[in-house]
Amino acid sequence: MKKQPLILLTNDDGITAPGLRTLVKVMNTIGEVVVVAPDSPQSAMGHAITVNDTLYCKKEYIDDGPQTEYSTSGTPADCVKLAVNEILKRKPDLCVSGINHGSNASINVIYSGTMSAAVEAGIEGIPSVGFSMCDYSWNANFKSCEKFIKIISKELLAKSNKKNIILNVNFPKISAGKNYKGVKICRQAKSYWKETFDKRKNPNGRKYYWLTGEFINLDKEKDSDQWALNNGYISVVPIMYDMTSYSEIDDIAKWNLNG
Amino acid sequence: MKKQPLILLTNDDGITAPGLRTLVKVMNTIGEVVVVAPDSPQSAMGHAITVNDTLYCKKEYIDDGPQTEYSTSGTPADCVKLAVNEILKRKPDLCVSGINHGSNASINVIYSGTMSAAVEAGIEGIPSVGFSMCDYSWNANFKSCEKFIKIISKELLAKSNKKNIILNVNFPKISAGKNYKGVKICRQAKSYWKETFDKRKNPNGRKYYWLTGEFINLDKEKDSDQWALNNGYISVVPIMYDMTSYSEIDDIAKWNLNG
Repeated sequence: MKKQPLILLTNDDGITAPGLRTLVKVMNTIGEVVVVAPDSPQSAMGHAITVNDTLYCKKEYIDDGPQTEYSTSGTPADCVKLAVNEILKRKPDLCVSGINHGSNASINVIYSGTMSAAVEAGIEGIPSVGFSMCDYSWNANFKSCEKFIKIISKELLAKSNKKNIILNVNFPKISAGKNYKGVKICRQAKSYWKETFDKRKNPNGRKYYWLTGEFINLDKEKDSDQWALNNGYISVVPIMYDMTSYSEIDDIAKWNLNG
Repeated sequence: MKKQPLILLTNDDGITAPGLRTLVKVMNTIGEVVVVAPDSPQSAMGHAITVNDTLYCKKEYIDDGPQTEYSTSGTPADCVKLAVNEILKRKPDLCVSGINHGSNASINVIYSGTMSAAVEAGIEGIPSVGFSMCDYSWNANFKSCEKFIKIISKELLAKSNKKNIILNVNFPKISAGKNYKGVKICRQAKSYWKETFDKRKNPNGRKYYWLTGEFINLDKEKDSDQWALNNGYISVVPIMYDMTSYSEIDDIAKWNLNG
């Protein structure tokens, strides 16, 4: 019998989030599933890791599926590090993070706990993918995603050849009964959040803020992930963690920095 | 009289950290300084932002310098967002983050709170630089950095032309009385952390972990930041926040993802 692929699942919304439960169901049809996920929501954690605090890890029994599950007190990146170094008996063949409740397309990838887990797996040499749904609702309809999650994950297992390919996959919000227009391989759209701070006073009269904001898309090009999502396509962006801006190296080398 | 440049300072080690106090001293000689920094250490926070919690902000009087200072309960990226949207009267001409107590070269840039502040400023269209010292000691000798911090910051003010150039600058640890070999413009070295989890039991007998690790440099090339630092040079890496792996787009476009 052919050995089943070992698939590590995680997320940033916490181990009981409906998005992760959908992933568990789909991934159980592809391989041996181990879930290592935060015990509470960790949204917008970026690539945080826990270096100045203790980490707890607990075996969980959430449903009667064949998967093994652990919750941790850490961030999504911590979960991957713990899984690879302490929990799993061998290196996983694939790491899948999500399904995030909310978009991780365009600039959101920078703030994303979901994608930090996928990137951490990539750094560890594991092919990985983060799935996100452009719908912040806890009761988002993940049914429509299932077919594509299975296709993309199987293709990643077949093609990645243990290279550290990292995919950022976002599903547009579609109405019930409608279909996605298809899958588009894209680049990260140029965009930013225009912040507004909602100012309030606590019961003791001390001022505090809530961070809110408006998403500004600066990119109208058809090869961007935001265009794909706005037009009903599933966006797939290959991700790297080399943040060097190569195009600026020669320019800055001409600056007089040696005094 | 020519208007002084407005310089925003922040860090991830907290507003009282010696590295930031060194920056305040140097930057007061270049422009009008406003500090907006975390009220407690935020190391390894990655690009976290506070979306599910309140943010507090307090005016601080730490020394008798001409700068204005605020501490916040947020992350380094929160500090930049709060400064730009709530505290500063105009967009700053430069954002300087650091001096971090510890390296942010090579893969460390991904986990770095110091660099997340610089990247956040870049996203907001502000030229920025993060300075880090490859010495984790709270009493690291920052004296040797001062000259280069001034040169690099002034050059960034002169050359960046309000473009969002982001620099990741790391200082090697050098012995007292020694000099740096110079400044080298580099790319991010290929590297990773090989984790070890230190397992302990709390007073109630419950197992917990401390994340520790060994830094593994896979990159021996002379154009990498790690080579520069290992050989006594100050490393300068221009940073971008487009995480698209462009070289993989064509390959993945050939995969069969539409089912």
